[in-house]
Amino acid sequence: MITQSSIDGFLERLASGDPTPGGGSAAAIMGAMGAALVSMVCNVSFGKKGYEAAEPELRNMLVRSEELRGRLAAMVAEDVAAFDSLMAAYRLPKSSEEEKSRRAETIQTSLRRATVVPLECARACAEVVVLARRAADLGYKHVISDVGVGVAAADAALRSAALNVFINAPSLKDRRFAETAIEEVERLVGTSAADSATTYAAVRTQLES
Amino acid sequence: MITQSSIDGFLERLASGDPTPGGGSAAAIMGAMGAALVSMVCNVSFGKKGYEAAEPELRNMLVRSEELRGRLAAMVAEDVAAFDSLMAAYRLPKSSEEEKSRRAETIQTSLRRATVVPLECARACAEVVVLARRAADLGYKHVISDVGVGVAAADAALRSAALNVFINAPSLKDRRFAETAIEEVERLVGTSAADSATTYAAVRTQLES
Repeated sequence: MITQSSIDGFLERLASGDPTPGGGSAAAIMGAMGAALVSMVCNVSFGKKGYEAAEPELRNMLVRSEELRGRLAAMVAEDVAAFDSLMAAYRLPKSSEEEKSRRAETIQTSLRRATVVPLECARACAEVVVLARRAADLGYKHVISDVGVGVAAADAALRSAALNVFINAPSLKDRRFAETAIEEVERLVGTSAADSATTYAAVRTQLES
Repeated sequence: MITQSSIDGFLERLASGDPTPGGGSAAAIMGAMGAALVSMVCNVSFGKKGYEAAEPELRNMLVRSEELRGRLAAMVAEDVAAFDSLMAAYRLPKSSEEEKSRRAETIQTSLRRATVVPLECARACAEVVVLARRAADLGYKHVISDVGVGVAAADAALRSAALNVFINAPSLKDRRFAETAIEEVERLVGTSAADSATTYAAVRTQLES
């Protein structure tokens, strides 16, 4: 599993001319870091004086942020697999009509997967942004800057995942699915940009108070 | 060295209630991923038909993006060390006047370090954004979405590092240094936000063409 490799090793492979890991995996790592920072702020807040009333909600948020962290970390490898299988599909033989037809079908299956993985990444990141926004209101003030980093990471991850939907969806023959995916991801990008700007500004205001 | 730990292990520690690693380290990883994606686009472009004229400039860019990747990866550990030494300084004894004075001095030294590390991270990320913008013009079109991810990552990293400057600089007694650092980082955040929005939009337009 790629997330068992070292950070240095991952960065080395990301920088290389090999097609994977690429931007999709980097996006999933950013999203997972965003979720982890929400978890951190929850964990740090527990037991702190003045944060007793927020604890039940923060405990629920932690359960969700940890689920999202797990999902996003798994997507680092899923993105590699989806991209590799798409590349393999394009390399299939196309000498006979039968081969051409099988190749076209495999490409469509792979394209759908290469659209669904970043779409799910975008959805998970949008949830992280919402959690981070709430964590900025409820969490321990001395680690509030970590919420600011978490929201910046999750928003960047979402916009990054969106690019992979924008690349792959247009080649899908299932137009209805493709258009729905593009619309959803555009909506998520818009909402997240607004939410993350609000949260970042709120964090900065708190730092100065 | 923390970047020799696995991605999963790092995420686990980031999510925990321990103060380090925190947002500063996450920022440095995002910046390093941004630099790595610029490197990847350069590496992929070499030898591609139609990209011969761009190769000399892309080779120079690769040298710089690899330097920046190395610097940013090193900052993951530097941020942990700076934060830990600041926490240790605050825990120093303050019973006697001599102890108080020594503690205050150590806090100032640590605060300066905890301002300089994110300031240098922000500077490096600003450079990555500039490189990514150029890579979007020059690089191999089929990996242009990776430039989009790289610029989103570097911009988020810069804004994240900026938060650590905003936290630590105000407590510095060297007001001139503190104000210069805050001004510089605000300027970098503004320029990068504009540059990254332009680059992301340009990447998206290319994806649709």
